[in-house]
Amino acid sequence: MKLNEKGLLVVISGPSGVGKGTVRRALFELPNHHLEYSISMTTRPPRTGEVDGEDYYFVDRKTFEKMIEENKFLEWAEFVGNYYGTPKEIIEEKIAQGKEVVLEIEVEGALQIRKQIKDAVFIFIVPPGKKALYDRLTKRGTESDEKIRERINKAEKEFLLAHKYDYIVVNDEVTNAAERIMAIIRAEHAKTQRSIHNYLKMLEED
Amino acid sequence: MKLNEKGLLVVISGPSGVGKGTVRRALFELPNHHLEYSISMTTRPPRTGEVDGEDYYFVDRKTFEKMIEENKFLEWAEFVGNYYGTPKEIIEEKIAQGKEVVLEIEVEGALQIRKQIKDAVFIFIVPPGKKALYDRLTKRGTESDEKIRERINKAEKEFLLAHKYDYIVVNDEVTNAAERIMAIIRAEHAKTQRSIHNYLKMLEED
Repeated sequence: MKLNEKGLLVVISGPSGVGKGTVRRALFELPNHHLEYSISMTTRPPRTGEVDGEDYYFVDRKTFEKMIEENKFLEWAEFVGNYYGTPKEIIEEKIAQGKEVVLEIEVEGALQIRKQIKDAVFIFIVPPGKKALYDRLTKRGTESDEKIRERINKAEKEFLLAHKYDYIVVNDEVTNAAERIMAIIRAEHAKTQRSIHNYLKMLEED
Repeated sequence: MKLNEKGLLVVISGPSGVGKGTVRRALFELPNHHLEYSISMTTRPPRTGEVDGEDYYFVDRKTFEKMIEENKFLEWAEFVGNYYGTPKEIIEEKIAQGKEVVLEIEVEGALQIRKQIKDAVFIFIVPPGKKALYDRLTKRGTESDEKIRERINKAEKEFLLAHKYDYIVVNDEVTNAAERIMAIIRAEHAKTQRSIHNYLKMLEED
């Protein structure tokens, strides 16, 4: 029995190259979860096999720009000529329905959301050490030295933003990290500030 | 890998009759935990089978009263002519050693501890409804009507102290409640305020 029947927005973020995506996928593979993945919107054309409303919501630039103007994104950014964003309304609806919505997102986007949704849960995924991350970033293999240096510089800056998050989860082993996130979600529901309202209602009714 | 290597004091409390003891026992039966139960001190004589240092620390009144004077209890109280208390030093040592110490205690004692240990985790166990608790309190069977009324009055007052706790856990089903507490303990370790110090140290070292 959950006292907090409202949903929860769980924002999973962390420095570039830490393996956010892998952890998020492992989270969705855990048994008995009721998580929903938040689907981003983009103006980039779908790749072969990508499904609209599943991988992304694919829209044209005009639609996206109109939504920016109307403040319909929790966050958005432009990468290499394409827009990417998190539509606000869909997430708000799901949370009102009591769903747990998971968002996996870059540090910059996460901090944009923090300003808008105060009671979301912000989780910062970190590597078991800086070296582990650098190894990972350099071993992708396909990139130029300059590109790699850029990525490392970005990660260096992002590393220092941990204090803006509610939780720090070490990605030492993917399943461990996913289980820690699941524990955080369970614990957040039990937090007095989230559950006291329904608790007092329960006392009234009984 | 835990960033927070310090221990944690977990205070399990709740209104009289809610089943704190049962939940605490279920918690210690969960697999792979590293919890330690905090042993109380008392001046009441040991009952048959009770072991000093296991069920209680059994001491005489003089020793207990000296410890009160020296402020050596996190909380203490006198019931029916006997003292009961939680020795401070033992708990502080265990926490410094990185242990997770669980204390199961009445509401009054829990609130005394809250004033002394700011970073302990306070969990309020509640029944799935008031009626469930009253049924439980009246069905103990061995008590007079007056005694039962007293207990219910006490529980009524305690019900309203939920807001002084960090978490509210519904004891709908004992194992569920114990698992929720375990999730809270895991999540607390990942909290940024507990783990940022070691996280920054990790960045330095690597």
